[in-house]
Amino acid sequence: MLENIDLSKTLDKAEYRKLKDEAELKLSALQRQAKELGIPVIIVFEGWGAAGKGTIINELILPLDPRGFKVYSTVAPTTEEAMHPFLWRFWQHTPARGRMTLFDRSWYGRVVGDRVEGTISGKELRQAFEDIRSFGRQLADDGNVIIKFFLHISKKEQKHRFNVLRGNPATAWRVSKSDLKQQKHYSEYLAASEDMLTETDSDYAPWTVVEAHDQRFATIKVFSTVIAALEKCIAARQQKQAVTPSTEAAPLTQMPEVFRSSILDRVDLSLTLTRKAYEDRLKKAQQALRELEYKIYTKRVPVIIAYEGWDAAGKGGNIRRVTQSLDPRGYEVVPIAAPNDLEKSHHYLWRFWVQMPKAGHITIFDRTWYGRVLVERVEGFCSEPEWRRAYREINEMEQHLTHAGAVLLKFWLHIDPAEQLRRFKEREKLAYKQWKITEEDWRNRKKIPQYRVAVEEMLYRTSTPFAPWTVVESNCKLHARIKVLETVCKAIQKRLK
Amino acid sequence: MLENIDLSKTLDKAEYRKLKDEAELKLSALQRQAKELGIPVIIVFEGWGAAGKGTIINELILPLDPRGFKVYSTVAPTTEEAMHPFLWRFWQHTPARGRMTLFDRSWYGRVVGDRVEGTISGKELRQAFEDIRSFGRQLADDGNVIIKFFLHISKKEQKHRFNVLRGNPATAWRVSKSDLKQQKHYSEYLAASEDMLTETDSDYAPWTVVEAHDQRFATIKVFSTVIAALEKCIAARQQKQAVTPSTEAAPLTQMPEVFRSSILDRVDLSLTLTRKAYEDRLKKAQQALRELEYKIYTKRVPVIIAYEGWDAAGKGGNIRRVTQSLDPRGYEVVPIAAPNDLEKSHHYLWRFWVQMPKAGHITIFDRTWYGRVLVERVEGFCSEPEWRRAYREINEMEQHLTHAGAVLLKFWLHIDPAEQLRRFKEREKLAYKQWKITEEDWRNRKKIPQYRVAVEEMLYRTSTPFAPWTVVESNCKLHARIKVLETVCKAIQKRLK
Repeated sequence: MLENIDLSKTLDKAEYRKLKDEAELKLSALQRQAKELGIPVIIVFEGWGAAGKGTIINELILPLDPRGFKVYSTVAPTTEEAMHPFLWRFWQHTPARGRMTLFDRSWYGRVVGDRVEGTISGKELRQAFEDIRSFGRQLADDGNVIIKFFLHISKKEQKHRFNVLRGNPATAWRVSKSDLKQQKHYSEYLAASEDMLTETDSDYAPWTVVEAHDQRFATIKVFSTVIAALEKCIAARQQKQAVTPSTEAAPLTQMPEVFRSSILDRVDLSLTLTRKAYEDRLKKAQQALRELEYKIYTKRVPVIIAYEGWDAAGKGGNIRRVTQSLDPRGYEVVPIAAPNDLEKSHHYLWRFWVQMPKAGHITIFDRTWYGRVLVERVEGFCSEPEWRRAYREINEMEQHLTHAGAVLLKFWLHIDPAEQLRRFKEREKLAYKQWKITEEDWRNRKKIPQYRVAVEEMLYRTSTPFAPWTVVESNCKLHARIKVLETVCKAIQKRLK
Repeated sequence: MLENIDLSKTLDKAEYRKLKDEAELKLSALQRQAKELGIPVIIVFEGWGAAGKGTIINELILPLDPRGFKVYSTVAPTTEEAMHPFLWRFWQHTPARGRMTLFDRSWYGRVVGDRVEGTISGKELRQAFEDIRSFGRQLADDGNVIIKFFLHISKKEQKHRFNVLRGNPATAWRVSKSDLKQQKHYSEYLAASEDMLTETDSDYAPWTVVEAHDQRFATIKVFSTVIAALEKCIAARQQKQAVTPSTEAAPLTQMPEVFRSSILDRVDLSLTLTRKAYEDRLKKAQQALRELEYKIYTKRVPVIIAYEGWDAAGKGGNIRRVTQSLDPRGYEVVPIAAPNDLEKSHHYLWRFWVQMPKAGHITIFDRTWYGRVLVERVEGFCSEPEWRRAYREINEMEQHLTHAGAVLLKFWLHIDPAEQLRRFKEREKLAYKQWKITEEDWRNRKKIPQYRVAVEEMLYRTSTPFAPWTVVESNCKLHARIKVLETVCKAIQKRLK
């Protein structure tokens, strides 16, 4: 989740003041409603040292009725606490119905800090993840709203902040030894955080990664997320209890677009490749891949390559370049269309499961199981609970595949709407390409904004350490083909090491 | 789950015929309804070699429309299958909507046979459990009814059956090498099976342990369980779809009492102890426990002793004998009554969590978190989904406690209704005991049958390898006290080794 986060986001002062004033009013009303309805609220702040957790928590509690919340600062456990299971002290501080607890750092330290420092590993680490997951689920089942933030800053930014703090005698004390250790071993903490976010993200207690370079941006993103979560839960509860919304109730606020973490915004579609460079690298990569194909065959490694992308993004041509030099006995391309009747009568993952490659073989999916959270979501072919559940189900399937030793690569072929339009028109003009363009393509095009939201959420929720997404800049097809080929080679080489 | 199973259960021939005829008619109607409603059904048979899986499957499919089901016999994976993730071949055979798959052995072999044979362990084993759990949950979320049987026979019975089979040239081939290995390493297979049952029991895919010494008994238990599960799912589905039950629909069948696995039936309440033997053993055990108290203090082991039992079973006196010689700085007795307002405003496990002992200390709970599945269930203080969920939540809590190193002991103090009546009357007569008897005790007494069902299910679903129940025969208080004391000592000694 972290590697694709755009840390350059900012918010100007005037906009900030306006949004903050609105948000404060809303939050204060929502706290009262949550209290009336007896909803317990848990807000967790995790993230890098000096990412601004304290400052944001201060902003967040200002509009709240102080009788209704408490802030629990997680420091090293006391002797008493260290003598109990690690979740014990957090159980103590779970909020009563109608109350709110804000955790400044929390139980997740067990699987990040403790892990990097080597005080926990192996079986104990697996157990900690299990215990954390059941803790969250039990509280959610009991009616708790659980909102979790990970405040993200880069290694460079953290270093800069530490330097500023240390340069001032009044603030130097705030940089602790463990902060400096985190700076030094940033990449290990990053890997552990990635793993933690994947292992503990769930529909009942989802993580929100907050781009925390700009304090104003981060603050409003936190406010908006809390407001959206509370409004959603309160609306659901009122419906269940058939309570008429009180006059305080505002219509459900949509999280402003700017605060959504965007991966696509940052894709540099200007990347191109000259024909000459393309042909050189293509030849080399294809040759390498052919050799790797034999190696994975003898080593019995299954390889799964999943293609998704916008209509006309060039999936077909891209796949052809991957397979061109391969031994046909070693790979298979599986095109995915709408499910047939038999497929529909099974679990939606069933038809993909049965197509998975055996050890030593390559399967390339032209469109994939991600249809569940893309077309099925946007077109309403499945219900919201179904596509929400699918993120977890898909991650579980991919994890099972990698448990069994598979290399799993997922490519999102990205083009912008203007390029898509150009290609559509070209297809209409050229007789030999006309079969490629249908009425449906034009219909889909009208829904680009909805698809974009779905794509963003997919990339965000299903980019895992074991099965990461690669976004492929595809306005230039030559660049796109080389990027995929070289990424596949690299991943297989890494696995064979 | 297995150690308390009563394998002596039988069913006579006439009763068997009658029940079987009824069951066949019902099952056949239910299959049609499941088909109409598009419900996929998965029935899994696991258990010991020669436990009778094949025979029962044959009985079960006789009344079924052969166009609606298939039997999948799990043998060693083919080369093709072995080259895929271990769940791959089972995914292939999951039933389409409205169809039924019976698995003769299944994916659970991965965590029993493969484990005992040492082909899987450590991280891989944890992963297999995770993969199995998500497999089941995904299918259940998609509407599958999942019914799982574990056919249980003793080591001796298995040996006997193998001998009979091998004694006849026509059947000798049926005893395989791996069968004989299982016989030889019965206790290891038993431990792995116990663990598997605990790790993969869930509300969406519960295990039913079948006492399989008597083939007739086992057959009818399987029929009844399948019928109850199908009826329940069909009724829920019809309600959801607002379908008027067709004329075929029968009222929900209650599983006949005799087929419920009973742990209490087998408790030998005639066990007694002479005063002399009692006093000798009491002194010895108390002394041993005091020494152990110091040892766990220095070794920082937390000990949790949980008491549950019928009213007037003698919990108070029993606890006094445990604490009598203990150093009061090292233990605490926590009496549990109805929750107060603050406690009610939290998760029901919260008040127990905060009372858990710190490392090196003993906490004795006089009544416990099991109130959720006993009094709260019987009196309707919580909803059915809530108490059903509680089995898992409680197992998770206890697992978390033992992850943190705790010794956890749970005692069910058992007396029969006649003995309870005698004690109630005695309490009314004796002035110094009158405070012990209230109107509520008499009210509870009227609900003994309902409580008994709840107790049986509690013992069954929450007896885990990490936190087993000990049923204490308490008609004789002297016996009961010694049994508890000695069990506590033994468990602590085992932990300290």
